Amino acid sequence: MEKKNCGLGKKIYLELAPPTEEDARGDRERLLDGLNEQGYKAFLPLKVLRNLYPFCREAQWKFTAVLGWQGEKWEVLALEEGDTTQRQYGAAVDLGSTTIMMKIIDLNTGEEKAFQNIFSPQIPYGEEILSRIFYTKDQPEHLKELQRLTAEGVNHLLRLCQEECGIAPDECLSMTVAGNTTMTHLFLGLYPWPVFETPFAPVSKGGEFISGRELGIEIPGYVYTFPAAANYLGGDIISGLLEAGFYKREELSVFIDIGTNGELVAGNKEFLLAGAGAAGPALEGGISQYGMRASSGAVDGVTISAGNLRIHTIGEGRPRGICGSGIVELLAEMFLEGWVDASGRFNEGVSERILRVSGTQDPEKEELAVCYAWEDESEQGEKLVFTQSDVQEFIRTKAAAHTMVEYLLEEFGLEGEQIGQFYLAGGFGTHLELEAAITIGIYPDLPRDKFCILGNASLKGAVRLLKNLEALGETERIAEEITYLQFGNAGDFLEKMHRAQFLPYTDLEQYPTVKEKLAAREAKRQKCGRVQ
Amino acid sequence: MEKKNCGLGKKIYLELAPPTEEDARGDRERLLDGLNEQGYKAFLPLKVLRNLYPFCREAQWKFTAVLGWQGEKWEVLALEEGDTTQRQYGAAVDLGSTTIMMKIIDLNTGEEKAFQNIFSPQIPYGEEILSRIFYTKDQPEHLKELQRLTAEGVNHLLRLCQEECGIAPDECLSMTVAGNTTMTHLFLGLYPWPVFETPFAPVSKGGEFISGRELGIEIPGYVYTFPAAANYLGGDIISGLLEAGFYKREELSVFIDIGTNGELVAGNKEFLLAGAGAAGPALEGGISQYGMRASSGAVDGVTISAGNLRIHTIGEGRPRGICGSGIVELLAEMFLEGWVDASGRFNEGVSERILRVSGTQDPEKEELAVCYAWEDESEQGEKLVFTQSDVQEFIRTKAAAHTMVEYLLEEFGLEGEQIGQFYLAGGFGTHLELEAAITIGIYPDLPRDKFCILGNASLKGAVRLLKNLEALGETERIAEEITYLQFGNAGDFLEKMHRAQFLPYTDLEQYPTVKEKLAAREAKRQKCGRVQ
Repeated sequence: MEKKNCGLGKKIYLELAPPTEEDARGDRERLLDGLNEQGYKAFLPLKVLRNLYPFCREAQWKFTAVLGWQGEKWEVLALEEGDTTQRQYGAAVDLGSTTIMMKIIDLNTGEEKAFQNIFSPQIPYGEEILSRIFYTKDQPEHLKELQRLTAEGVNHLLRLCQEECGIAPDECLSMTVAGNTTMTHLFLGLYPWPVFETPFAPVSKGGEFISGRELGIEIPGYVYTFPAAANYLGGDIISGLLEAGFYKREELSVFIDIGTNGELVAGNKEFLLAGAGAAGPALEGGISQYGMRASSGAVDGVTISAGNLRIHTIGEGRPRGICGSGIVELLAEMFLEGWVDASGRFNEGVSERILRVSGTQDPEKEELAVCYAWEDESEQGEKLVFTQSDVQEFIRTKAAAHTMVEYLLEEFGLEGEQIGQFYLAGGFGTHLELEAAITIGIYPDLPRDKFCILGNASLKGAVRLLKNLEALGETERIAEEITYLQFGNAGDFLEKMHRAQFLPYTDLEQYPTVKEKLAAREAKRQKCGRVQ
Repeated sequence: MEKKNCGLGKKIYLELAPPTEEDARGDRERLLDGLNEQGYKAFLPLKVLRNLYPFCREAQWKFTAVLGWQGEKWEVLALEEGDTTQRQYGAAVDLGSTTIMMKIIDLNTGEEKAFQNIFSPQIPYGEEILSRIFYTKDQPEHLKELQRLTAEGVNHLLRLCQEECGIAPDECLSMTVAGNTTMTHLFLGLYPWPVFETPFAPVSKGGEFISGRELGIEIPGYVYTFPAAANYLGGDIISGLLEAGFYKREELSVFIDIGTNGELVAGNKEFLLAGAGAAGPALEGGISQYGMRASSGAVDGVTISAGNLRIHTIGEGRPRGICGSGIVELLAEMFLEGWVDASGRFNEGVSERILRVSGTQDPEKEELAVCYAWEDESEQGEKLVFTQSDVQEFIRTKAAAHTMVEYLLEEFGLEGEQIGQFYLAGGFGTHLELEAAITIGIYPDLPRDKFCILGNASLKGAVRLLKNLEALGETERIAEEITYLQFGNAGDFLEKMHRAQFLPYTDLEQYPTVKEKLAAREAKRQKCGRVQ
């Protein structure tokens, strides 16, 4: 029986009977039969075939076959004397447009042995993915260059992981890569232009095993790129859906990934419906004057209590700016404490943290801002502020996210109570305080146990597949069965957007828990008396 | 439904619907779906994937997919604009240890477009295959050298065929190669030593698709090497059995290939039993003083009538020597005419063609010989002779062949009348006058319609498979199901050999047609009077 309850790489220790006149099978056949008996249908590439002699005899027919899944069969990647099955690993990659993340997984235990991330080596060719696409347009050499750089980035991660855990790239038998459609195109060296040009038919939707060697990746086995369901619904989402797992349950669930783009998938084991749209870069901190990526020194948590604003920074050091989750918490706290009103306007005088700064657009023209931190400890130096313009811009972005979710749920005819689980994926889902996100109205105000924060679902799905060959069929099924609805054709889209440009929403009745919180905070303030 | 009633290479012309917003499948998926609809499950290698854009769009979605069978699936080897399905070819190779033969086959019509042969480029490393094996022993560089030379030989044949028919190597989508186990090892670059060392377990029994590129063969697709059933029962025999086709019939048949080695396979659709042994090189003319290969100038036909010996030479030119079939006919005619007796001894004086020459072993010691031709037309110059020693040596060889057949038939419990067809394969079976071979007792004296001369069955089988993917499963089944009997363990082998060292056999009653012929010739001689 064919074994599939293993990872995409597998080491099999064999003790084979040496040839005799009665059993004069070829070395190749002896090896393949041995693997077959253990449920592994394999083939030998010429390189390994040529090394069979004298290897098998020198190893006295006790050796380990190193297998990598090739899509149809197992390829015998190498043979190792004795039993080396203790060391079998794989690499899972989240190929983001900004960050590439890698985990090294022990395929025996499923353990994570290393976790590293780097900025995408493509960034010098454009922070925006569209700039990179333009860079390759009609320039095959540029496309090759980006492919090579991306492969080198992945190799660099392999070496960083090696430094962390001592596992060498050539011990990684297989690699799974989850990226959006453009990133997957650039990774494979496929022309990405059609992804963004009507009718949006990419060169390939992926879902392929390609030898690492061919791609310039320093692993002995194959690299699997997660398939896309549509140009805007890439392998990263399919990987996330694999991780969420509701595609095999009765219960109807919703999966949301809001980053630069926003994707929403609703369904169960009967159907999967998806929509996607641009959420704007605000959620990643792109528009804030002091906005920054979620890296060391970024403010990622804010509380306001008894008039005191307190922050948390990534790495616990001095603050350098504020990242997406920090902004969401800042806004939520300011709203609950009455520092801003439902339209996001600052209430001047309610706190000394609210002050006037020179305007973002026009330095001559002052605007209100909140000073959420100081760069130096003495709180005398440079102020870190979030301005009225920043707030307005962010509210527009959160309105886009909210509207996308609202629109898609409506499109699918779904009401909150029908939803079993509400899976939140992406960096946003991880770091963001869920309560804060509901408070400002990004997500609907549903019972909290319905929310399930997946974190980096894309990377997690890549790890899941790496560890389990059986998940491959499921991955392909998800990508195949998902129905993609083109987003943005709704007539009342702008109207919906408009309604969402309030905290948490025009109609507070739709956010009963936020209403309660507002009341509770108000009561607390009444009790303690307004500070300052 | 998966199509298999085609060759190992196939071109498919596609007219695909261009992408639209409603049908935004990837180019890859569009192509693969198009092939799937026609019954071809395919995959795209990275090289072709990277060329999809802008190829498909420039070709306006009307193009030809060039497919090569890879063992599990079809590989899209290339894409060609427009409909190029008229030109799809393959190459079939008989990889002999002396000669390599190639046919180029039109995969549309099954027609043979070219036929070329060359001497094996391995010959300088040893006429005997064993010398070549010794050459590679513990010398990986020597093995690489022989592999490269063999591949270059095949490439040279591809170019000779191109000169003959105008079909370029890169138009050959697939190649089938039938060779014995050692030749297949050398062709693939596998260490051949174990083939000849107890317990005779080769490195690989073959039966694989390996990319031409990896082997250094200048075709775009895959090279299939016929599988061996055992070290002495190689891919050339499996290919011959595929051609003979009795493995799928009720009727019991026998397949014989007598060259340097002799192989015999008996069976039907229920079972296949095989045996093999060394027949000696005599049948290929190796031991005769003037023995030569069946090439231009070789005497390949002899008749003696009314005391006159007449010859036929290959190429119709002046004789340069005598080849296997010439020797068999010479011996048969001399026996029927009473020039030699049943033990092969010359009857001195019966013809002036029988004369005394200086001995083969000891030039001082004269021996009898027949002058079968003169090198020059005037019949004054150098005599071409076949000596008493040659006759004796040849009779020992024919006895070995006879005994092998007899032994195996006995071993299998087969009597002549049980045999449906008697397939004769190999160069010997082609050129040899069947009657002559029976007259001297190589084959049993069976009704002539039981004999079926296959000719170069190995090459024919390679052509058959090349034209028909369905035959692949049959090929594998033959190699798998055949039972190989180690030959030469029979206690009465020497005794049998001894009995076979007469023309046609000790007991003439077992050769009734030869007995009749002898009587008829005798009667004719009586009637006409002995000439000279």
